[in-house]
Amino acid sequence: MLSEANIIAKLQRAFPSHIGDDAAIIHPTPALASLVTTDLLVEHKHFNTAYVDATSLAHKALHVNLSDLAAMSATPRFVLLSIAIPPRHAAYANVFLDAFTQACLDANVVLIGGDTTASDRDLFINVTAIGEAHSSHVKGRSKATPGDVICVIGELGLAHVGLMAFENQFDGFFEEKAHFLKPTAKLEEGCWLGQQNGVTTLMDISDGLFIDLTRLCKASHVGAELNLNALTITDAFKQATEALAENPLTVMLTGGEDYGLLCTITSSEYAFLSAAFNTHFNQPLKKIGVITSSTDVTFTQDEQPVTLTLTPFNHFGESL
Amino acid sequence: MLSEANIIAKLQRAFPSHIGDDAAIIHPTPALASLVTTDLLVEHKHFNTAYVDATSLAHKALHVNLSDLAAMSATPRFVLLSIAIPPRHAAYANVFLDAFTQACLDANVVLIGGDTTASDRDLFINVTAIGEAHSSHVKGRSKATPGDVICVIGELGLAHVGLMAFENQFDGFFEEKAHFLKPTAKLEEGCWLGQQNGVTTLMDISDGLFIDLTRLCKASHVGAELNLNALTITDAFKQATEALAENPLTVMLTGGEDYGLLCTITSSEYAFLSAAFNTHFNQPLKKIGVITSSTDVTFTQDEQPVTLTLTPFNHFGESL
Repeated sequence: MLSEANIIAKLQRAFPSHIGDDAAIIHPTPALASLVTTDLLVEHKHFNTAYVDATSLAHKALHVNLSDLAAMSATPRFVLLSIAIPPRHAAYANVFLDAFTQACLDANVVLIGGDTTASDRDLFINVTAIGEAHSSHVKGRSKATPGDVICVIGELGLAHVGLMAFENQFDGFFEEKAHFLKPTAKLEEGCWLGQQNGVTTLMDISDGLFIDLTRLCKASHVGAELNLNALTITDAFKQATEALAENPLTVMLTGGEDYGLLCTITSSEYAFLSAAFNTHFNQPLKKIGVITSSTDVTFTQDEQPVTLTLTPFNHFGESL
Repeated sequence: MLSEANIIAKLQRAFPSHIGDDAAIIHPTPALASLVTTDLLVEHKHFNTAYVDATSLAHKALHVNLSDLAAMSATPRFVLLSIAIPPRHAAYANVFLDAFTQACLDANVVLIGGDTTASDRDLFINVTAIGEAHSSHVKGRSKATPGDVICVIGELGLAHVGLMAFENQFDGFFEEKAHFLKPTAKLEEGCWLGQQNGVTTLMDISDGLFIDLTRLCKASHVGAELNLNALTITDAFKQATEALAENPLTVMLTGGEDYGLLCTITSSEYAFLSAAFNTHFNQPLKKIGVITSSTDVTFTQDEQPVTLTLTPFNHFGESL
């Protein structure tokens, strides 16, 4: 089996301590760290040009990388763009390039290089982003300890609903579709959290809360207990998932591509930081559970343990 | 028209002074520069798994990037690998990943990140490499002046012959095929040249001598006069190109993927540096022409001007 997890495990064995966070740290000095991250977007796997316009895709191709930098509390500085263009997408690619340029200018990052080539059939886009952070502000995933409060910032499951609405060619779903098309990296939130000593871990939620929290727990050698009552299901979200014949809770736990942030905070600091965050950003630093000393992610509802069977999003499916 | 040149020109307008050399320079300090480069390898465009084995491809995917760093007189430090794997290439990709890991270890570079995903049909590989150099050693392409000697290091046209031998399913051509399959970045040569004050420009030859020299001239606002008599056509090379029904001189001028180095040296320093290079590396720093004050690349043979019509290698063909 050649799953993404297997590939990462194989590379981690060869290069221990360098792979695992949202972005790699290089040149750490006492004061400054450079963070590097890369993301590959493949037509038919990550986007469909039938409903993802070139301008949205350009924004997304940049921001999925900036989201990794946000997770490292870094300020984005530079990007590189590699693009393989099939002849049928020449016009689309032209719009993409202009929009990508504009998205870089908007985010105050400089495009410093890349590679362009033809492709037989599918459009491939690879973006590499480089940012800077104070070394002491980079939280990583490995320092959660039992008792820490688990928090999320941003919507859960909304992008998945938007994607499904597109896939099923449903009218409406404007908010969900927009959320899927144009995620915006939570850079200011990431920087702010990096400055707080009470924050023990920080990562972005790209593949869905459950799988990303599982990764965090694995990196920290801890478990997690999620309180399902904390996952607020609005009427609108309930209706939207019902229209898609999906369970709203499952979508919130496994839907990918929201690009919110997931962090852990010491229990003694949570109340203070939550209030300060809310004041600063006018959005909640939402408590959804606690870190435990087990190695599993478990769930409670109405203060009772519940068992959920979740199938996380996986580019490769079961195996190749 | 959406050619690679048009795309680069478009991006250069938006981000002037950041795009154009083999690798981008970031964080330049008085003493140290970080160099970043990226290369995209697309199945059917850059390689064919029918005759490029996974181990060779892994070596090549790394070394085409290291060659860009060699051109900037940099020492490679870190790489990122993005790979999109179609199901039919699962076994090939598995070998590729092991070989890429080994190639990184051999080159003393650390794999710090990447992205893996599935692909519907074709294999796509994007490698980003980061190196370090003394800022004063990075030559770039823009400081050639009329009278400078034009030099090449390495073979010209050999990789093209190897590629054509594979494409035509010719037996033999062992040296040419090996040269095409496993180019090795001229890192030590690049570092050495960076240390010499007499070297005015330095770049690698990835797309063929003629097109790369044309780029160098454009960046320096100069022309070049190439002495065709200096391009030594061995009997073996003549026979090989004849077997392919190609002109040996045309192949030397336009064949891509040799990954040699192209540099200019002040006329006063050439004799000294050429001798020192030969002593140090036991290979020639071969003089093939001079920089002129025109803006064209022209040719002489037996000290007479000659006109050649060359069609450089172009991934996109004429247009998309």
